[in-house]
Amino acid sequence: MTTVPTFAVRPTFLGLADDDPDSPICVAGIPFDVGTTNRAGARSGPPAIRQASRMLVDGDHPVHWVSAARLPLADIGDFAIALGDIAGSLAAIEKQAAPIKHLVALGGEHGITLPLLRALAKRTGPTALIHFDAHVDTWPENFGQSYAHGSVFYRAITQGLVEPRRMIQIGIRSPVERAVYDWTREQGVTIITAQDVHEQGSAGIAGKIRQVIGEGPVYFSFDIDVLDPAFAPGTGTPEVGGLASWQAQAIMRRLGGLHFVGMDLVEVCPAYDVAEITALAGATMVWEYLCLLDIAKS
Amino acid sequence: MTTVPTFAVRPTFLGLADDDPDSPICVAGIPFDVGTTNRAGARSGPPAIRQASRMLVDGDHPVHWVSAARLPLADIGDFAIALGDIAGSLAAIEKQAAPIKHLVALGGEHGITLPLLRALAKRTGPTALIHFDAHVDTWPENFGQSYAHGSVFYRAITQGLVEPRRMIQIGIRSPVERAVYDWTREQGVTIITAQDVHEQGSAGIAGKIRQVIGEGPVYFSFDIDVLDPAFAPGTGTPEVGGLASWQAQAIMRRLGGLHFVGMDLVEVCPAYDVAEITALAGATMVWEYLCLLDIAKS
Amino acid sequence: MTTVPTFAVRPTFLGLADDDPDSPICVAGIPFDVGTTNRAGARSGPPAIRQASRMLVDGDHPVHWVSAARLPLADIGDFAIALGDIAGSLAAIEKQAAPIKHLVALGGEHGITLPLLRALAKRTGPTALIHFDAHVDTWPENFGQSYAHGSVFYRAITQGLVEPRRMIQIGIRSPVERAVYDWTREQGVTIITAQDVHEQGSAGIAGKIRQVIGEGPVYFSFDIDVLDPAFAPGTGTPEVGGLASWQAQAIMRRLGGLHFVGMDLVEVCPAYDVAEITALAGATMVWEYLCLLDIAKS
Amino acid sequence: MTTVPTFAVRPTFLGLADDDPDSPICVAGIPFDVGTTNRAGARSGPPAIRQASRMLVDGDHPVHWVSAARLPLADIGDFAIALGDIAGSLAAIEKQAAPIKHLVALGGEHGITLPLLRALAKRTGPTALIHFDAHVDTWPENFGQSYAHGSVFYRAITQGLVEPRRMIQIGIRSPVERAVYDWTREQGVTIITAQDVHEQGSAGIAGKIRQVIGEGPVYFSFDIDVLDPAFAPGTGTPEVGGLASWQAQAIMRRLGGLHFVGMDLVEVCPAYDVAEITALAGATMVWEYLCLLDIAKS
Amino acid sequence: MTTVPTFAVRPTFLGLADDDPDSPICVAGIPFDVGTTNRAGARSGPPAIRQASRMLVDGDHPVHWVSAARLPLADIGDFAIALGDIAGSLAAIEKQAAPIKHLVALGGEHGITLPLLRALAKRTGPTALIHFDAHVDTWPENFGQSYAHGSVFYRAITQGLVEPRRMIQIGIRSPVERAVYDWTREQGVTIITAQDVHEQGSAGIAGKIRQVIGEGPVYFSFDIDVLDPAFAPGTGTPEVGGLASWQAQAIMRRLGGLHFVGMDLVEVCPAYDVAEITALAGATMVWEYLCLLDIAKS
Amino acid sequence: MTTVPTFAVRPTFLGLADDDPDSPICVAGIPFDVGTTNRAGARSGPPAIRQASRMLVDGDHPVHWVSAARLPLADIGDFAIALGDIAGSLAAIEKQAAPIKHLVALGGEHGITLPLLRALAKRTGPTALIHFDAHVDTWPENFGQSYAHGSVFYRAITQGLVEPRRMIQIGIRSPVERAVYDWTREQGVTIITAQDVHEQGSAGIAGKIRQVIGEGPVYFSFDIDVLDPAFAPGTGTPEVGGLASWQAQAIMRRLGGLHFVGMDLVEVCPAYDVAEITALAGATMVWEYLCLLDIAKS
Repeated sequence: MTTVPTFAVRPTFLGLADDDPDSPICVAGIPFDVGTTNRAGARSGPPAIRQASRMLVDGDHPVHWVSAARLPLADIGDFAIALGDIAGSLAAIEKQAAPIKHLVALGGEHGITLPLLRALAKRTGPTALIHFDAHVDTWPENFGQSYAHGSVFYRAITQGLVEPRRMIQIGIRSPVERAVYDWTREQGVTIITAQDVHEQGSAGIAGKIRQVIGEGPVYFSFDIDVLDPAFAPGTGTPEVGGLASWQAQAIMRRLGGLHFVGMDLVEVCPAYDVAEITALAGATMVWEYLCLLDIAKS
Repeated sequence: MTTVPTFAVRPTFLGLADDDPDSPICVAGIPFDVGTTNRAGARSGPPAIRQASRMLVDGDHPVHWVSAARLPLADIGDFAIALGDIAGSLAAIEKQAAPIKHLVALGGEHGITLPLLRALAKRTGPTALIHFDAHVDTWPENFGQSYAHGSVFYRAITQGLVEPRRMIQIGIRSPVERAVYDWTREQGVTIITAQDVHEQGSAGIAGKIRQVIGEGPVYFSFDIDVLDPAFAPGTGTPEVGGLASWQAQAIMRRLGGLHFVGMDLVEVCPAYDVAEITALAGATMVWEYLCLLDIAKS
Repeated sequence: MTTVPTFAVRPTFLGLADDDPDSPICVAGIPFDVGTTNRAGARSGPPAIRQASRMLVDGDHPVHWVSAARLPLADIGDFAIALGDIAGSLAAIEKQAAPIKHLVALGGEHGITLPLLRALAKRTGPTALIHFDAHVDTWPENFGQSYAHGSVFYRAITQGLVEPRRMIQIGIRSPVERAVYDWTREQGVTIITAQDVHEQGSAGIAGKIRQVIGEGPVYFSFDIDVLDPAFAPGTGTPEVGGLASWQAQAIMRRLGGLHFVGMDLVEVCPAYDVAEITALAGATMVWEYLCLLDIAKS
Repeated sequence: MTTVPTFAVRPTFLGLADDDPDSPICVAGIPFDVGTTNRAGARSGPPAIRQASRMLVDGDHPVHWVSAARLPLADIGDFAIALGDIAGSLAAIEKQAAPIKHLVALGGEHGITLPLLRALAKRTGPTALIHFDAHVDTWPENFGQSYAHGSVFYRAITQGLVEPRRMIQIGIRSPVERAVYDWTREQGVTIITAQDVHEQGSAGIAGKIRQVIGEGPVYFSFDIDVLDPAFAPGTGTPEVGGLASWQAQAIMRRLGGLHFVGMDLVEVCPAYDVAEITALAGATMVWEYLCLLDIAKS
Repeated sequence: MTTVPTFAVRPTFLGLADDDPDSPICVAGIPFDVGTTNRAGARSGPPAIRQASRMLVDGDHPVHWVSAARLPLADIGDFAIALGDIAGSLAAIEKQAAPIKHLVALGGEHGITLPLLRALAKRTGPTALIHFDAHVDTWPENFGQSYAHGSVFYRAITQGLVEPRRMIQIGIRSPVERAVYDWTREQGVTIITAQDVHEQGSAGIAGKIRQVIGEGPVYFSFDIDVLDPAFAPGTGTPEVGGLASWQAQAIMRRLGGLHFVGMDLVEVCPAYDVAEITALAGATMVWEYLCLLDIAKS
Repeated sequence: MTTVPTFAVRPTFLGLADDDPDSPICVAGIPFDVGTTNRAGARSGPPAIRQASRMLVDGDHPVHWVSAARLPLADIGDFAIALGDIAGSLAAIEKQAAPIKHLVALGGEHGITLPLLRALAKRTGPTALIHFDAHVDTWPENFGQSYAHGSVFYRAITQGLVEPRRMIQIGIRSPVERAVYDWTREQGVTIITAQDVHEQGSAGIAGKIRQVIGEGPVYFSFDIDVLDPAFAPGTGTPEVGGLASWQAQAIMRRLGGLHFVGMDLVEVCPAYDVAEITALAGATMVWEYLCLLDIAKS
């Protein structure tokens, strides 16, 4: 427990004082949202997630017994983006991500994942991918736009940034053209629907994830809209029928030992949030991920 | 996927351009709420549900693979009602419903179901009924009013508009006098409580529904307050302990092949909604129903 | 069903007209919140819970078939507290609680439980305790303050007000130092995490509670933050991954026959509530408790 | 200043303990809203106004130096109304108002004023009227309904309940058919628009009111939508361009010495309020009126 | 007054049934917001403004005595825009605006004004401009972006689309570099600050506008953030100290007889609105403009 | 204009990177709110004000032509306070304030002003005071508490920290006992009511302030509730009839040349704010003050 009350903790992620970009793990905000297709505002996600994260330093993680202080972690602030410019922003994001050892990105919309994967692939080659989302995000284009937030994994697959056979999507449930869905599976991607999670239980899903991912490096992308709108109203493209936050936690807590190389938490849109519950859910999922890193090391 | 972004889709139901009342299936709003017993405002439900429904045309239904474009569907606007006048409004609703081939009504409060059933019974005789709700709605009167929203199925049963032995209520959990509850069951109505759903699971409940309903024509009435207030805060008489929206979907998706003759989605009250989540849940349940119609035809 | 519509019921708890402090069971508000560690405002809980409770008198409890009218129950208004003064308020609360036969307190923050237990212990000796909460509340101090809301059960245990081996905590999931957690268990306290509830089911948890509590007198303390923020956004220290309200109900309904001697419902913070759903959840949990008292008598 | 903090004051109007209907002045809630033409929910006005009124007992009125304790005032609770029934409710309201010596009514919608004037006229004959509103409310009917909230003064004039030449409307600015407007003026009613108030100043308007009203008995009807939506968002038919609350106060404070015989404060709709500002504005205007009664006596 | 209650009016602008793009005056939504520099979401302005506009057809304008039915007006729906693409969207907007006789655009952000002026300039040459705004919007670029919403009038001036000496800005008050401010005035633009409006009064300001504009064609651009955040919270770059909505109305009502050739109402951002007050203010300002067109014709 | 978009500016006050406590001017948050008498939550004011302040670095002040970059200003973070402990917190605040050269404090509630004045008086002796507020805050005690937020200036006067004859209160309008009011004036304090501001105009009020304050050192205390609830809903004890934010600005801008020695901006309570308008008003008033410091130096 820190020595200041929760409400007075510094509004960096987890109240971190360290902002050294050479830290082994860096948290950064990426306030980019120009490619959203429905409700706008994910640009305002980073400060909201940081502020909500102050709840998480009142003690250790209650399962992994990790404390924030123990992690070699810095909050390096926000990436610069190019105002109103998708291509310019994606290039700027990739460039800023490149030198960071292990990046945990706070979105912003899902489009930011493409340059993050690109920066990573240059170092590690294509990675495996764990993708929590209501949407497959493998549309070849969104309403005429090739780099909108629904095309990020179409691009990642076709550009060879991920290994589709080591890619698994959890919580899928949005409307989607059958051709898009079928294409995704034909690439080798494993799709777990939200109803699968509700019916098969967390342990089974976690086992499936471990089986798909295997031993190699894996990137973790968490779109907050994987949660039901009851648990995450503050997002741009909500879809009913989603996961409870405890389900996401129960799955994540069973992923210890995987070889994680980066994470993003995207699509928190504070203008539609209530009582900070979406931001808190987002911050908590990041914290669950960070604890996995810690226990991997120990 | 339509050619315009979700946020720009025309605010008819599913962005429909067709408004022909002779269409095989017609969606209509019924902005009537004078008989509500707690929080007011279901009159404002239709435009909110329509606006939220724009999320649903980004692709096909992810299980039934139905697209909105494939359905012979029109949004015919709102019914006229008599301002501040229950009897006048119910008469007006029945009259407007009469010529419509297959009506999907967006409430408004639950009182609208009575004239809709009356119009239907004149054509088909008494129907079976699938009724999702937190409340039995079989009070002989509500606080002195015979046609308030809590008496709709008392009237429907005593007026012979439904077959009580082919009537099933799912999600019941509100306070209710034991005499009202017992009367309902004595008529032959099957009552499935919310706790039953939580404990027995969706497949079991769907099986029970199919067993009660059988082969004949069946009307589908979905009161949004069957969902827990976490999933549907925007309603007039919320009751804690309700269904998650995924549970309602899991049940509905197992009702293919029934002989549906009409539907209503009632009690969405936007003044108490947050981030449109209740309106979206309502729109989604209507969409689940429409897909059942499509697969019945195929 | 009362003779006035829900929206017009008097805003006492359950619309009670009786305010006699000599009643066998008394409901009282305790608008104290000076020891909260994150979001402020639980002081405004009592009127919000009372107003929401009006929903509950539309009929009998749908499982226990108890009506509010049948209970020997009074709403005696709010306790006086000492503005901005923890020690003075706790002393005032204890003094006011002392003469009440069976008190059901509407908080206010969790710190109010300590003087309530102290008043009770003077009459009955240490009691057993059923404690629904996201937090263990056994920190020796909170950010330097010995009587903040996170230390209430550390004080209760060390002051001998409860029997730790007959104490059970349900829904625990917040960050907590391992030392605090271990100390709690070493005292003999049984801790059931939220994930335990999700995985083991309500019947199992209820059985465990009955086993821990046994025959003697038991106090019931319900912190609304045991519910997930989706179900109870209106609280000061929300933690994701919590219980659904139906789970709390399913457990409570299986606790009939225990020897209850008092209850509190704490940490409802209306400034962060939406559509009164947190206040309604709180009122409902109090109502579930009151029905247990009634069936215990019959 | 009372001896309990503002947040803990009993939620009657001004925290009154007295509920004797024989008191010289009685405050009553009238939770009726069935005749509203746009956003629903004025039924929930009375508890919101009462709760907000707790701010007003922290001291004396800062101009009239009146304290709530000094007024012979009771809060007699809410009138019974007939659920969903305009005619039945108006009759019930008139009957309940009849025996009260001096009634201050908390609406509810503006339709309640008609039976209040009727009850009054039976005792005193037609009265003068000071009417703060955005709307003339002299439509012969509203969308086919003769007793909706926009027809109240058409009925009051044609039924001889008020003296139109001693009737003045302040703050008018809504759309209105010219024929309705002209008819109103032809009856002798003085209409002061909101722009008149902005341009002529409070003292001038107050002088004009005093001139129109003269010496005889006068009823005071305050529709909260006379205030601009910035000051009173929580109402059903907001109209931009309205009064600031200070302007209403500045006018009212200059009306001392008139022979007031009753008041209503209508159209507070809490579902659209923010931070209780509309309810507080409503409570404050009632308090300004009550102080006028006090200074009239001294 | 229409024959349906306000809450049931069709959610086109003013409930218009006519959607003929050849109408003498056309209202169109332009859901574009990619160039906003602070809070996102003006893309959702058009449906919100349309829905709020339903309040305005309850009668005639209370000063100009114009009714919506009398105007040769159509609501032609929304313009297509290029998702996430400023240049593509501006080109598309210009192309769609070109054939419209007299366009009244509902934004969307202020960037849409540039292509609207460009379309107009091709027909009429450079126009005069009345510009209500908190911001001068003459920055050469915004944070590196040349076509963000703060540069629209820099582009309009430098591209010769407006006559700067016949251009007047009203309500200016935001932070601005002195060089930008001075450049604007050096072009001949007249700047009236918000404090000027507060101190000089509406009649004086209107006189100044008439003097600057003169006889030729004039375009009218109304950024909703000219209003104080109290009156228009639902916008992206609010600035305190702004106009009351009555001031804007008082000025506009004195502009009859000018030669208006088009209008836009921009920067309504519903995600930050409360109780629809910003959308209603926006709709009302459009209505004030439309009435000026009508009286100009008579 | 900074080189990053407004939404991405670092959430320190004005986006300051400097946090050196030896800076000539230091901004600090003081998250203390234990002595509030109505709605809780001013503890959360500092991060909200800081976040809103990002709007103010888009350019220079539009009257004083000051830029944030030009000021020798640091944001030194938040003061430590003693959780739930008034006396302990006041002592801690005084101690932390003592070494700061010129402190601008972001509250927190008004009680923080007492230790700030105490720290100042030890250096400079009693100061003059400009006090914007709805409340006189000279109650000898508040509901039994001597150091609640309504007693701060009673203590300041009786402890000799301010010179009452050089003290002026602007915007006063809350209920207050006549004895408290009279005592305040008898000490020599000048009281300007909100109605005085509305009727006398900003220039006259500013002149009166200059006359009362004179040449010596003066402290500036701005309670956000001086603004009307329409302009500042996010506060704990709102009072209708208050100032518009433009009025406060118009007065402040005329106070150049006074010898300011410190400032606080108190009682912003974000839980009741909407669309950040209260936080933005608060940040803007601090900015107006800072510009006065700059022009005093030039």
